[in-house]
Amino acid sequence: MGLVVQKYGGSSVADAERIKRVAERIVATRREGHNVVVVVSAMGDTTDDLIDLALQIVPVPAGREYDMLLTAGERISMALLAMAIQSLGYPAESFTGSQAGVLTTATHNKARIVNITPGRVEKSLEEGNIAIVAGFQGVSPDTKDLTTLGRGGSDTTAVALAAALHADVCEIYTDVDGVYSADPRIVKNAKRLDTVTYEEMLELAACGAKILHLRSVEYGRRYGVPIHVRSSFSNKTGTTVTGSMEDLPVEQAIISGVAHDRSEAKVTVVGVPDKPGEAAALFRVLAEAEINLDMIVQNISTGGTGKTDVSFTLPKTDGQLAVQALTKVKGQVGFENVLYDDHIGKLSLVGAGMRSHPGVSATFFASLAEAGINVEMISTSEIRISIVCRDTDLDQAVRAVHDAFELGSTGAEAVVYGGTGR
Amino acid sequence: MGLVVQKYGGSSVADAERIKRVAERIVATRREGHNVVVVVSAMGDTTDDLIDLALQIVPVPAGREYDMLLTAGERISMALLAMAIQSLGYPAESFTGSQAGVLTTATHNKARIVNITPGRVEKSLEEGNIAIVAGFQGVSPDTKDLTTLGRGGSDTTAVALAAALHADVCEIYTDVDGVYSADPRIVKNAKRLDTVTYEEMLELAACGAKILHLRSVEYGRRYGVPIHVRSSFSNKTGTTVTGSMEDLPVEQAIISGVAHDRSEAKVTVVGVPDKPGEAAALFRVLAEAEINLDMIVQNISTGGTGKTDVSFTLPKTDGQLAVQALTKVKGQVGFENVLYDDHIGKLSLVGAGMRSHPGVSATFFASLAEAGINVEMISTSEIRISIVCRDTDLDQAVRAVHDAFELGSTGAEAVVYGGTGR
Repeated sequence: MGLVVQKYGGSSVADAERIKRVAERIVATRREGHNVVVVVSAMGDTTDDLIDLALQIVPVPAGREYDMLLTAGERISMALLAMAIQSLGYPAESFTGSQAGVLTTATHNKARIVNITPGRVEKSLEEGNIAIVAGFQGVSPDTKDLTTLGRGGSDTTAVALAAALHADVCEIYTDVDGVYSADPRIVKNAKRLDTVTYEEMLELAACGAKILHLRSVEYGRRYGVPIHVRSSFSNKTGTTVTGSMEDLPVEQAIISGVAHDRSEAKVTVVGVPDKPGEAAALFRVLAEAEINLDMIVQNISTGGTGKTDVSFTLPKTDGQLAVQALTKVKGQVGFENVLYDDHIGKLSLVGAGMRSHPGVSATFFASLAEAGINVEMISTSEIRISIVCRDTDLDQAVRAVHDAFELGSTGAEAVVYGGTGR
Repeated sequence: MGLVVQKYGGSSVADAERIKRVAERIVATRREGHNVVVVVSAMGDTTDDLIDLALQIVPVPAGREYDMLLTAGERISMALLAMAIQSLGYPAESFTGSQAGVLTTATHNKARIVNITPGRVEKSLEEGNIAIVAGFQGVSPDTKDLTTLGRGGSDTTAVALAAALHADVCEIYTDVDGVYSADPRIVKNAKRLDTVTYEEMLELAACGAKILHLRSVEYGRRYGVPIHVRSSFSNKTGTTVTGSMEDLPVEQAIISGVAHDRSEAKVTVVGVPDKPGEAAALFRVLAEAEINLDMIVQNISTGGTGKTDVSFTLPKTDGQLAVQALTKVKGQVGFENVLYDDHIGKLSLVGAGMRSHPGVSATFFASLAEAGINVEMISTSEIRISIVCRDTDLDQAVRAVHDAFELGSTGAEAVVYGGTGR
């Protein structure tokens, strides 16, 4: 008898039929003798529909009232899910983020969880109920106002609640059946991973694998909550995110997988004076515009011109904003030009074994060279190598690297749902 | 500078355009120098859509989770309305029933307000905000669970909140522009009433005039809150419900209007033994089935048979349930038969002047007789006479009575939206 926290995303509860199917799965877990706490997102497109409504009223909906609006979505799905469980003969109670004690900062639309005081959820479990909790939402103890956690917030709610309740596992049900060694739509023999470490999952999430939200993995690592990513459409075991790299056998050269990302653009600032503080001035401007940068590369100044080029990648959606912000300070900083390129792709090789096996980067770059891929930028961490190439070369690059490290399965494992790097 | 509570129903906030128009009206009231508290219902068909969703999951949705589901509706409309007011340059904050201190009994789906502690609303007003409050919902202080007040609950929220805040007036905006002397769709020269007493409005509401919910009028009477019923589509003054009959001039023979109702059916239990307790047995069975009866008539037993007929009216929706309940006890009570008739219409003449003017009933029945209307049942109160006739005769009966008491306006007042008796 353990305690299982299960999280179901919007596509898993998109209509009444799917809600009934999810209820059956929850009841099956209960029948196995476990206590179950369920975290649920809003149904299918509900959140987008609510955003559309708000946009008809104000151009940029934000703040307290926007959170009040969006929190209606989970309220609908969780009440329907509780009814569906009850109709199968099991007692269930649903709780808003506020009722479940999800305490957050007061920053509307992107609040962060500061504490969870799940007294009502614990009491409900003691009374024999299956407890349903609204994902994505909380309450600020300072203002007593409702808040939302931003995109991917339901994953974070689930992992944080699992930590607070000392759950045995946090199961994240999604429309893919685990974390793969590469996107199965690109690499035919991509292999589902049984386990990955939190660190690897963080790198994969940061490199474009959309399966788990970064913050939820960070939370899981901090509190040691095993996260089991699995499909809501099948009973197959998925991928468990658990354990630290420190626990891995020293000799094992583990490469987990290849992630890719088409959502970024590259900005190059040409002819920046190669003096201390000039690059800093550029980045201050971008920070003030609240733009998150990903990879940053500065070339050495060549040919004694005293000038250098600075390149960085960032989400395409922030591209125009960044170019505008930089152009404004062109005279002040004294650079020559800003180039914008949104036809790039990013490939990342992630693996805990990387740091102790220097041959990894040699094999990595050799495989790309053999495939004729031109590498435009490089960035590395202890357990990751990322490169930028043309977006039209990206698929071929993913296959080349995946093959070179023999990451594929040899069997005929059925791959149905997406994979990393979507 | 006063405090005005305004209530907008679902059709007034059915889409983004209408929400913007309502926001302009609210801001206009604010500009006149008043503090404004707004009670809002769910948008258009939202509640019905949510009920449909629930019906896809369970045959009879009810209880705690059903309330959790339905309360999402007002959360959406109130947040959008707050955004619309803000976009006009006025500060606004929305509050759920729970946040506004609407404390209710724990009876889900038909809770009753037990107290209102509007501390957060008062604070918001002091800070200069327009406060928006969700209608129809509250929280049970015993269980800490969300509750709903049942159909028409938003009217009750508004009047109760107006009482708790000592507001100067509670304005109920609806799709009709006041209370009429009869349904203008039936009676061409029906007149909009400037004022009616709480007692008259209670009788009108109970007799099929759907403009105000009965409970809200009761609340208004108990706490002396003037209720101004007016159209959300025009700026015309509507009808104010205020004052007691005791305040009216003694000599005044005021007849307010003619209400009618097509929503009832008639059940006749034939051949009931005319002994003490037999009728009581029938009504106990109906009470146990939670059926509310309206008019009840028992004829004297004729011809020495020792048997009598008992007739009553009830909502058509409860008709089959009542017939089934009665048929079950047929042998036990020993009556002969149950007849069911859902082709009846009910007409009610309401007026505070009635009790002191005995000529009223004479004129009433004479007008019906002249129009050739067959009266099937009669019931009276101090300020009301009701009759049942064939539903096909109802319109003609309404016109005959309206004419006989000269209730019509002589001018060419434009009557656009519905009226009493819808």
